[in-house]
Amino acid sequence: MSVLIVGSTALDSIKTARAEVPRLLGGSASHAAVAASFFGPARLVGVVGEDFPARYLKLYRKHHIDLEGLRIAPGRTFHWSGEYEVNMNNRRTLATELGVFATFSPQLPESYRNSPFVLLANIAPSLQHHVLDQMRRPKYVVADTMDLWLNTALDDLLRLLKRVDGFVLNESEARQLTGEENLARAAKKIHRLGPRHVIVKKGEHGAILSAGGKLFVAPAYPLERVVDPTGAGDSFVGGMMGYLAGARGPVEGNLRRAMIYGSVVASFCCEGFGLTATTRTSRAAVEKRVKELESLTRF
Amino acid sequence: MSVLIVGSTALDSIKTARAEVPRLLGGSASHAAVAASFFGPARLVGVVGEDFPARYLKLYRKHHIDLEGLRIAPGRTFHWSGEYEVNMNNRRTLATELGVFATFSPQLPESYRNSPFVLLANIAPSLQHHVLDQMRRPKYVVADTMDLWLNTALDDLLRLLKRVDGFVLNESEARQLTGEENLARAAKKIHRLGPRHVIVKKGEHGAILSAGGKLFVAPAYPLERVVDPTGAGDSFVGGMMGYLAGARGPVEGNLRRAMIYGSVVASFCCEGFGLTATTRTSRAAVEKRVKELESLTRF
Repeated sequence: MSVLIVGSTALDSIKTARAEVPRLLGGSASHAAVAASFFGPARLVGVVGEDFPARYLKLYRKHHIDLEGLRIAPGRTFHWSGEYEVNMNNRRTLATELGVFATFSPQLPESYRNSPFVLLANIAPSLQHHVLDQMRRPKYVVADTMDLWLNTALDDLLRLLKRVDGFVLNESEARQLTGEENLARAAKKIHRLGPRHVIVKKGEHGAILSAGGKLFVAPAYPLERVVDPTGAGDSFVGGMMGYLAGARGPVEGNLRRAMIYGSVVASFCCEGFGLTATTRTSRAAVEKRVKELESLTRF
Repeated sequence: MSVLIVGSTALDSIKTARAEVPRLLGGSASHAAVAASFFGPARLVGVVGEDFPARYLKLYRKHHIDLEGLRIAPGRTFHWSGEYEVNMNNRRTLATELGVFATFSPQLPESYRNSPFVLLANIAPSLQHHVLDQMRRPKYVVADTMDLWLNTALDDLLRLLKRVDGFVLNESEARQLTGEENLARAAKKIHRLGPRHVIVKKGEHGAILSAGGKLFVAPAYPLERVVDPTGAGDSFVGGMMGYLAGARGPVEGNLRRAMIYGSVVASFCCEGFGLTATTRTSRAAVEKRVKELESLTRF
């Protein structure tokens, strides 16, 4: 089954202690769609400007991503630039140029409206709502977010939480949203806001799933060298949704394994700038790391 | 088989956002010995002052801890006082009164010298050396440490690392010792300093074992309420060594499971001030949480 993915489609200029790389393909939807594409068909909803390099359209196509929902609008592509410290958990945004995203209102092609799996990747909650309004009874909807929306669009986000099956956010966002330092308690509070599946991302420490009154602790794949963590969270949720859409049986029974696949795709993402490493890997390489994670956690 | 444990035996005054509790039984050796006692005989090496409450000696005895190596010296017991922020990962030391620890030089009773398992719990590396000097060919030696010794006794610590089988330290100490942000690489560098087993504690995120060229990722038992994390790291390593001493077969085959048991004992430790919750639990309750951790991590 296919996954519809809405989110940002951007050009990222990234600086680390070791290198500086301008205008790479980035954005939450780009990372999530490439991640999902390892497991089945992905449909992209987004907007880019007239400056969007043709080679990046080619890259999407190489991954068989359906681009019918990608609009090329007059103006410039959303551009983000950021810098990482030596400890890559710390980064700061140097510039955000919204470009064509400033006036974006996603219109779904007719062919997208019955997608069974919907990933509302990180983007303004109002746009996530707008996409959901156009869907016909999707089977499973997950929303991702970021601290920006907690600060600037909390009401929209809280309304959104009542419309989704799963909600993904990182540790500090979970604490901010609930006022709870303890993540197990924070997850319980988030359930009360709507979603029956709550996933808290902890970066290099993995992720936690709270579902059906139980927790699942998913490890991160341990990497010896992190080149650029940009998009790792988007890759995680994209890989997870791709795996879920491709798996048989009810979502509940596949969710843990889906998180492991998401974790593994995110590990590849971190090994190169932007999407460089993710786009170079293969389903077989993903399977190999999933097996390694099994042996890394067995006791 | 029995575990010999040397470390601090202290009175801890602990302040959290919710409560303030004076002069509890604490110290690395106290936590580690009680944790080890769930799995078999533990032998304590330490010193306390004449002010040491009789009820704490009784508490040790209730856990069948061999006290032949505990000296009661003229003077006052080592006293530590500290305060936790709402986020319990942050604490600051308010006072450290060494008391009888200032001049402590551990002398092992004859009956201790052939203990097969030796835990050099957190204490000055010179004292850890001194204990090791008195041992007769122990089967398995593990040292724990803290940032203080990296800052003030690095040479002693580096010499110690050549004498131990396993070394336990926390994330930030691993980074400080090696100058490596990445923990997998930090662990590799620590192997080159001596120990064949390197365990990096990550608090609520669990712990990592590097051994035989492979990593093991041990989860922490997720708690909804942390009352006081003081001694959790000591409980972890104490529980681990206790389990190892009680298990059949080579250490290598038991180490992962031993870390899970250590993790579980540490989770009980966090649920009460000082040793309150640890001393109230039972082997059966430990086994129950180990089973829960199995189901929490299965995918």
